[in-house]
Amino acid sequence: VIPIVTLLTDFGLRDPYVGQMKGVLLSHCPSARIVDLTHNVPAQDVGVGAFFLKKSWQYFPEGTIHLPVVDPGVGTERAVVVLRRDGHLFLGPDNGLLSGVAEGAEVFRIRDDVEISSSLSNTFHGRDLFAPVVGMLANGKPPEELGEKMSAEDLVVCPLHESKIGARGEIIGEVLFADHFGNLVTNLEVKTLSSAAKVFLKGMAIPLVRTYGEGESGKLCGLVNSFGVIEVAVPMGSAADFLGAKRGDLVTIKEH
Amino acid sequence: VIPIVTLLTDFGLRDPYVGQMKGVLLSHCPSARIVDLTHNVPAQDVGVGAFFLKKSWQYFPEGTIHLPVVDPGVGTERAVVVLRRDGHLFLGPDNGLLSGVAEGAEVFRIRDDVEISSSLSNTFHGRDLFAPVVGMLANGKPPEELGEKMSAEDLVVCPLHESKIGARGEIIGEVLFADHFGNLVTNLEVKTLSSAAKVFLKGMAIPLVRTYGEGESGKLCGLVNSFGVIEVAVPMGSAADFLGAKRGDLVTIKEH
Amino acid sequence: VIPIVTLLTDFGLRDPYVGQMKGVLLSHCPSARIVDLTHNVPAQDVGVGAFFLKKSWQYFPEGTIHLPVVDPGVGTERAVVVLRRDGHLFLGPDNGLLSGVAEGAEVFRIRDDVEISSSLSNTFHGRDLFAPVVGMLANGKPPEELGEKMSAEDLVVCPLHESKIGARGEIIGEVLFADHFGNLVTNLEVKTLSSAAKVFLKGMAIPLVRTYGEGESGKLCGLVNSFGVIEVAVPMGSAADFLGAKRGDLVTIKEH
Repeated sequence: VIPIVTLLTDFGLRDPYVGQMKGVLLSHCPSARIVDLTHNVPAQDVGVGAFFLKKSWQYFPEGTIHLPVVDPGVGTERAVVVLRRDGHLFLGPDNGLLSGVAEGAEVFRIRDDVEISSSLSNTFHGRDLFAPVVGMLANGKPPEELGEKMSAEDLVVCPLHESKIGARGEIIGEVLFADHFGNLVTNLEVKTLSSAAKVFLKGMAIPLVRTYGEGESGKLCGLVNSFGVIEVAVPMGSAADFLGAKRGDLVTIKEH
Repeated sequence: VIPIVTLLTDFGLRDPYVGQMKGVLLSHCPSARIVDLTHNVPAQDVGVGAFFLKKSWQYFPEGTIHLPVVDPGVGTERAVVVLRRDGHLFLGPDNGLLSGVAEGAEVFRIRDDVEISSSLSNTFHGRDLFAPVVGMLANGKPPEELGEKMSAEDLVVCPLHESKIGARGEIIGEVLFADHFGNLVTNLEVKTLSSAAKVFLKGMAIPLVRTYGEGESGKLCGLVNSFGVIEVAVPMGSAADFLGAKRGDLVTIKEH
Repeated sequence: VIPIVTLLTDFGLRDPYVGQMKGVLLSHCPSARIVDLTHNVPAQDVGVGAFFLKKSWQYFPEGTIHLPVVDPGVGTERAVVVLRRDGHLFLGPDNGLLSGVAEGAEVFRIRDDVEISSSLSNTFHGRDLFAPVVGMLANGKPPEELGEKMSAEDLVVCPLHESKIGARGEIIGEVLFADHFGNLVTNLEVKTLSSAAKVFLKGMAIPLVRTYGEGESGKLCGLVNSFGVIEVAVPMGSAADFLGAKRGDLVTIKEH
C-alpha cells in the first residue's frame, strides 16, 4: 500500500518551506505519495484552514494521513495531536484547525519527548516535528506509540461560523472567503430551498440558480457549490470585485 | 507501468479544488503519478488553455493521460469527450479546449450514464466526473467502454488565433498572453525568417535575436521561444510592463 | 531505490514551463519522484536561488538529485556543471547558483556534445538539456560519463551576501528577501547572542525574541528563523509592509 499524505498550510509557494517539509517527510518515508491540498490558506487563518480540511479529506482513500499546518502558536505550549477516524489520520496543532474533523475521532496528544532525530527550530515545527512524526505514521507506527489518548471534547474548538436563524425565520450566515474565481463562499449549509428563495448580501437580493450556466453572464447569482454551501457568484466575472465583499460580511437567505 | 496523468486547469492554487480532484483520482487509481501542467490558465480562457495543452503534451511519454479542465459550461449540456492519438489520451469538455490536439485523433463521447460511484455536483465536474473517469482510464479501461465513437470533425473548434498574411506580404498575428517573466507570447509560428526581419507591436519596430543573452538588457527584442512561436521580450525586464501590451494586441512581422 | 529530484526555478507557476520540464524528466526516468522546492525565485535572481538551495538540500535523503534553474545566460557560453557531495548530486548552470553547495564537492563540466535525443531550444535549457541529463543521472549514469572533472575553485562564485563586522564591533548584514508572511530574511548567521542584543533596520531598534509567540502581536521583533539566520518579523502581520524594507537594506546587530 502506498501511503498518501496531504498537506494544507498557510506557507505559500514563494519560499522553500513546503519543499523542505516534503524532504523531511520523504527522508522518513521514501514511498509516501504527497498531495498538496493548498498552501495558500490566508496567513494564520485557522478558521479557513479548518473549513478547507473539513470539506476535503473525504475525497481521499482510506489510509490517507492529513497534515494541516496553520500554526500561529508555533514554539509556545499548544499541544500537538493526532486524530483517527474512518480510517484516516490527521496530525496538527491543537488550535482549532482539526475542529471540523473531530466528530467521532480517537484523539492522541503527542508526547513532548517523542523521539525525532532532527533538531527542533523555534519557528518551523511543520518541518522539524510534524513532518518526522507523519513520516513515522506513514511507515505504520500507530498513534498509540506516539502519545496518550485524550478526549475529543478537550480539543480546542474553532468557531466554524455556524449559521443562525433570525427573528423572521431567515437564515443568517457570513462570507468565509473569496475563492480563486472571486466566488464568495459562505458558511450556509442549506439542504433544501424553495425555488423562490433569495440570498441577500450587501443589500442586494440575489436569485438562486442551479449552475453557473443558468446564471446571467456578468450578473450576481447564488448557488449551492461544490463544498455543499451557498456561494455568491458572477458568471464569467468576480463576485468579490463586483460587491467589494469580504470575510465576515453577513449573508441572509429568505424563502419568499 | 506507472500511469502518468497531467492536469491543466483554471482553478488556481488558492483553494483545495485541485487537491480534491487529485484525491478522487488517487481513490480510483492509487498508483497514478500526477503532474501539474498549470492551474493558472486565466479564468474561463479556453483559448489559452488549448494553446498550453497543444504545446505541452508531446513532452510526456507515451501512455500519458491528459486532463485539461477549463469549463465555463459546467452543468450545461456540453459533451465530455476522450481523444486518443499517438499513444496519449485526453479527457475534457467539448468546448474547444481539445482543438489543438484533435488532428488525427480517435474521439469518444462519454455516455451520460457512465457509472461513477460518487454524486455529481452542479459546479465541479473536474472532481466529480472527470477525475473518476480518468481514474478508470488510468486503470486500463479503454475509451471504447466509456462512450461512443464520434468524428473528430464534430468537435467544437476553438479559434486558435492563426496568423494571416497582410496586403503587403507581412504576417499578422496577435499577443496570446504575457508569461511569468512578462514575455509577450504570440500566435506567430514562424519557421524561417531573414536576419533583417523585424517584429512590430504597439508601433515599435523590434529587432529579432536568437537568445535572451543576445538582446540588450532592458530593451525590447523578439525571438522564437520554447513554444516555437515569436515572443517579444525585455532581457532582465518585463515586455508586458514596458509596452502595456495585452491579449489580442496585433503583432506584425516584416521581412525587410 | 526511488530517485528523488528537487526542482528550484524562477519559472513561476502561471505557464506550463515547469510541467513540460517534468514531462521530459519522466520520459527519461518514469520512476523519479519530483519535489518542487519553489518556482518563485525572483526572476533572474541567482543570489536568492543560491540561498534557497544552500538552506534546503540537506533536508532530503542521500541519493537526491537537485536541479536548480535560474539561468539568465541561457543560450550563451556559460557552462553546465554537476556537483557531487555527501551523496547528493546538483545539476545547473555555472553562474553562481551552486556556490552555496560547492564546499567539498567534486565538480564535472557537462560536455557540449552530450547526447540528448531532443532538439535544443535557445531559450529553455531547463527542459531541453537539464531535464534529460537529470533523467540520465536518475537512471544511475555517473557524472563521470557526462563530463570532465574540473576544480570546485573554478566555479563562478555568487556573492552570498556574507555579513561584516563594523568599526564598533557591530555585525552588518542585509535583507535578502521578504518571505510569504512578509518576514524580512537577512544574511546574518548568528550562533549566539546576548539577551540584550538588538537588531537595527531602517532606523528602528528591534528586540530579539525566541518565537513568534513571544513577540508582541502587530509589533516588530527579530529572531533566529528556520533558515538559521536573523529575520525581522511582525507577529500576525507583515514586517515588509510595516517597514517598507526591501532586498539590500542594511541590517545591524549590536550586543548592548
